[in-house]
Amino acid sequence: METLIFGIDYLGTLVFAISGAVVGLERRFDVFGVLILALATAIGGGTLRDVLIGSTPVGWLTNPHYLYLVLAGVLISYLLKDVAVRWKRGMFLFDTIGIALYTILGLQKTLDVGLSPTAAVLMGVVSAVFGGVTRDVMANRVPLIFRKEIYASACLAGALCFLALDALINESIAMLISIALVFVIRVLAVKRRWSLSLET
Amino acid sequence: METLIFGIDYLGTLVFAISGAVVGLERRFDVFGVLILALATAIGGGTLRDVLIGSTPVGWLTNPHYLYLVLAGVLISYLLKDVAVRWKRGMFLFDTIGIALYTILGLQKTLDVGLSPTAAVLMGVVSAVFGGVTRDVMANRVPLIFRKEIYASACLAGALCFLALDALINESIAMLISIALVFVIRVLAVKRRWSLSLET
Amino acid sequence: METLIFGIDYLGTLVFAISGAVVGLERRFDVFGVLILALATAIGGGTLRDVLIGSTPVGWLTNPHYLYLVLAGVLISYLLKDVAVRWKRGMFLFDTIGIALYTILGLQKTLDVGLSPTAAVLMGVVSAVFGGVTRDVMANRVPLIFRKEIYASACLAGALCFLALDALINESIAMLISIALVFVIRVLAVKRRWSLSLET
Repeated sequence: METLIFGIDYLGTLVFAISGAVVGLERRFDVFGVLILALATAIGGGTLRDVLIGSTPVGWLTNPHYLYLVLAGVLISYLLKDVAVRWKRGMFLFDTIGIALYTILGLQKTLDVGLSPTAAVLMGVVSAVFGGVTRDVMANRVPLIFRKEIYASACLAGALCFLALDALINESIAMLISIALVFVIRVLAVKRRWSLSLET
Repeated sequence: METLIFGIDYLGTLVFAISGAVVGLERRFDVFGVLILALATAIGGGTLRDVLIGSTPVGWLTNPHYLYLVLAGVLISYLLKDVAVRWKRGMFLFDTIGIALYTILGLQKTLDVGLSPTAAVLMGVVSAVFGGVTRDVMANRVPLIFRKEIYASACLAGALCFLALDALINESIAMLISIALVFVIRVLAVKRRWSLSLET
Repeated sequence: METLIFGIDYLGTLVFAISGAVVGLERRFDVFGVLILALATAIGGGTLRDVLIGSTPVGWLTNPHYLYLVLAGVLISYLLKDVAVRWKRGMFLFDTIGIALYTILGLQKTLDVGLSPTAAVLMGVVSAVFGGVTRDVMANRVPLIFRKEIYASACLAGALCFLALDALINESIAMLISIALVFVIRVLAVKRRWSLSLET
């Protein structure tokens, strides 16, 4: 289970890095700009979480694997630049797996340092979505999270689901179900154009 | 006195949350976007202060009342959306009370961890104004604080006033006078269109 | 050597402050807005580094000299506002000295708290460039670092150079050579319009 989590954590880092790099390429930033945007997208959420809960130095300063994965993501983005259109659906899927994983991992890390479940749910959502917010602010556009489409709400639902199930059933199963829930909500929300807007 | 401070601190959190939520509603963000904007506005200043002075986990992760107040502020904003115009004057008053309180509270918290008065004044201003800066950057507009109108300068005057009075008179009275000073400067600045611009 | 480093660190703070203040003046921010922009530019990079590596309270809260230098930079900017055009070349030179110094200083501070050389290189670059990123985001424009011109790449080259030379020769000399390398790359990049864009 631990190995699985690490595997998907690393996979999440990779696909978030690609997501940031592609935005940088679209905007014709130079190599370094692309790298920074990839880095901010991939590690922004976990970094803010670590800083807020006081777990410093932040994770990617003590474990260089995250940085190598970001570099790999940037490389892949340059190589596959021309097939970005075909990649968009794949990236959406990986990105959704990424936010699902980051939500549960962020939640657990916050519980591990002794904070409350309320704080943990919030930090789970922050871990999942803040990288994308940073990417959009740096690229000078209104963050996607603030548009009508459901995004952070899927993470919130998954985090609450995990807290509820964790008290009832095996932790690994609770984790997998919660991750699947985030994934399903996000996919359905986009397919069926769900919106949380209260306007009519 | 402690109870009074907590009361106004909580009131400040509530009105800052409303201030952020209303900007989100104006821009037609979804429920989650509105929530994040409200959260950033209400707790952004205190969070930056806590991170910079090394007081982590930050306050709202260990005291959930702040989060409940933000949720309440978002609810109120949705319910009163249509009377936003009538609310603007009320919100201006509460917002001004909020920055006045946050200035003095931030100053004291910084002194409490053993930092210098200079650092405390700076952290007081940061506590008061950074939430609004975060809100404006997230909503992709030039922060209000950078426009001509006096805003942070009122907080700075209040912070310096408190430091001066605190050495001379009772702390509670020094606090109330300083808070009143921020409030009065801010109200007069808007009414009389004071500006710190040195241009002619 | 220590004295020299402090001298140039302080000089870097001063010129970065001027760089931020001038952007604020160009955009007609009020005095306080100009001050905050100068502060963010001058201390943004070091602050992010200190927060990420867990070295809090951050440096400028315990050493007020940085704040006085920022105030001096703002004063100078107001006094010399009308000769800003003539100043641009001078500011470019000082700014380049500043990022060169901040790169090496940030790298060393990160090594000093026991983190890896990889982390140190990254924090060196962050120290040098994040102040400018903050300035541009606050002024609501796409950060210069993301444009085509080589900027952070020069810092990265200097950081790697220092790590390599530090193992071979005297530390002070390694430092001076690395600083000179950042400076030369940056100047040549602007003069000869070097770009890292991979587009053709």
